[in-house]
Amino acid sequence: MMGAAGLGALLLTTEPEVRYFTGFLTRFWESPTRPWFLIVPQSGAPVAVIPSIGEPLMRRSGVADIRSWAAPDLDDDGVSLLAATVRELLGARDAVGLPDGHETHVRMPLADLGRLRDLLPGIEITGDQGILRRLRMVKSAVELEKIETACAIAGRAFARVPEIAREGEALDAVFRRFQMLCLDEGADWVPYLAGGAGPGGYADVISPAAQTPLAQGDVLMLDTGLVFDGFFCDFDRNWSVGQAAGTARATYRRLIEATEAGFDAAKPGATASELHRAMRGLLGGETGAGRLGHGLGMSLTEWPSLIAADDTVLEPGMVLTLEPGLESGGKVMVHEENIVITASGARYLSPRAPETLPEL
Amino acid sequence: MMGAAGLGALLLTTEPEVRYFTGFLTRFWESPTRPWFLIVPQSGAPVAVIPSIGEPLMRRSGVADIRSWAAPDLDDDGVSLLAATVRELLGARDAVGLPDGHETHVRMPLADLGRLRDLLPGIEITGDQGILRRLRMVKSAVELEKIETACAIAGRAFARVPEIAREGEALDAVFRRFQMLCLDEGADWVPYLAGGAGPGGYADVISPAAQTPLAQGDVLMLDTGLVFDGFFCDFDRNWSVGQAAGTARATYRRLIEATEAGFDAAKPGATASELHRAMRGLLGGETGAGRLGHGLGMSLTEWPSLIAADDTVLEPGMVLTLEPGLESGGKVMVHEENIVITASGARYLSPRAPETLPEL
Repeated sequence: MMGAAGLGALLLTTEPEVRYFTGFLTRFWESPTRPWFLIVPQSGAPVAVIPSIGEPLMRRSGVADIRSWAAPDLDDDGVSLLAATVRELLGARDAVGLPDGHETHVRMPLADLGRLRDLLPGIEITGDQGILRRLRMVKSAVELEKIETACAIAGRAFARVPEIAREGEALDAVFRRFQMLCLDEGADWVPYLAGGAGPGGYADVISPAAQTPLAQGDVLMLDTGLVFDGFFCDFDRNWSVGQAAGTARATYRRLIEATEAGFDAAKPGATASELHRAMRGLLGGETGAGRLGHGLGMSLTEWPSLIAADDTVLEPGMVLTLEPGLESGGKVMVHEENIVITASGARYLSPRAPETLPEL
Repeated sequence: MMGAAGLGALLLTTEPEVRYFTGFLTRFWESPTRPWFLIVPQSGAPVAVIPSIGEPLMRRSGVADIRSWAAPDLDDDGVSLLAATVRELLGARDAVGLPDGHETHVRMPLADLGRLRDLLPGIEITGDQGILRRLRMVKSAVELEKIETACAIAGRAFARVPEIAREGEALDAVFRRFQMLCLDEGADWVPYLAGGAGPGGYADVISPAAQTPLAQGDVLMLDTGLVFDGFFCDFDRNWSVGQAAGTARATYRRLIEATEAGFDAAKPGATASELHRAMRGLLGGETGAGRLGHGLGMSLTEWPSLIAADDTVLEPGMVLTLEPGLESGGKVMVHEENIVITASGARYLSPRAPETLPEL
């Protein structure tokens, strides 16, 4: 792929990109201080250019060629070492590619990227032409097993929500207790939890939990991205606090049906936009601000997007969320499951939600 | 500060930068899909240019001028809207500054940054000359209160470690249980947990927890960055599993003394490098790969760095970690506390660790 793109090497700077080629798994990326670099040459093994604090773990991860410096270095935070290494590995080629497209960013100071360009005259620092996207979108059997394990852990935690959520319990306490359930069931950590609660639906799906107590007639939603061995699940569950109103039950039912329509459309050769259309047709009216699903793996969200404009063709090994939403009168309800594309169609990775809105 | 720097506006793209000026707090940043932009003009209120999914929360955060688009848009993911807004807000100035120095990155696709430059001919897109660094380094009373609350939560969780860690317990289970304790004591979430265990010390401080059971003579260390209302603590605790060896006790004692030396040196007018020197003098030999402390606040790690080369002058309101480490024979021990600089010296934000290595 690098040859076709005219690239002598890839230069990678973010957690999933570096981990994809090395298995280097650490929560230390939470610290924004230090940059980390991996160079993947067109031929030969990847070379890590990293702060010395990461050298023991990177060595255990199986990377033989590690160049390190004592970061943070306020004068030269790895940039000249990186430039020398890029020059050495490029060979006759004169272009190095960084992921630069949708859903990417370059995790290094912008001024240092400018310095790198200055140190590499005659070498083009350009985009990766979507190479990382194409590689990461299709999961291996090992990756699938980890994602499915993460889904199973979340499934067990969701099944225990009646232990922690009831009328009168504050939503922020439910959020804390739910994360404890995820850990208790085997999550390594819980990078993502969103949700909401309100009469007949919730106001939005990205706000932090308020201290408001759950009340009869509230619809409660919890949506988690927990991690097992570096891989995410991302799905949600809805409950009615006490007896469910007819409208909430009907909305829930439509979301389940839309999910099933997306599932049925999810076959190799179908496009992301076709899945969107299959679900969209059952939703009518307002579907809220979001897409109707997305890729999933080493990151909580990945390519493709289930939107009308995304023509990505599905292949076996792609992992997707199906995430239909319905909005009415400023209230939203969202349902979400995780699936994998197989040769013969789709398979659910998340344990299925109940057919009717469960009551707490 | 913008006037002195010749900037008409700041352009901000990362979670802490956007939150600093808006209070926009959401775990949705875990999703790498969508870019978020905040423009802070030299005069007038900040303007948010964000995906429509974030509009309700941004409005509740008090931002009146919000321009949104239906992200993800594969053709134009907010770039033309951003360009038009920058042009409108710049006024007569022709330069907009992005944080581009140490510990920063630009959270948007690199290709989109190029498109933004193309859409703004005649407008210089340049660095922020350290404005965000200077602002964020000195905490307000409200920020201090949140950091201190986070520290108190972690202190209570550390005090309960004897409930979960003992000989025979696997380290990865201890990691899970400790995160549960943090949540049980009031953490909103636990973005960071590192640590290690081994006879007389640990191999490094950034690796994920193995399934190895704790054994008599192990030194166990847990280091957490938990979040309360968007603010971090970052400190650790060490324990001996069973009776502590004399060398481990002596190493621990030296780390405590180095911490106290750093604390005593931490006064307004002192520099980060002076704190480093005060601690370094008590450590001798090898101190490991890391710095001996760092800033702390909306991020797990912030400026300054307690290293020899950092001449940042301390001011009241700066929050620091003191983090001396000792390495010998491939084994490391690290101790860490959190302090705030006050007019008269330093004050501990973290509850103090015991004077001698505690035994489980």
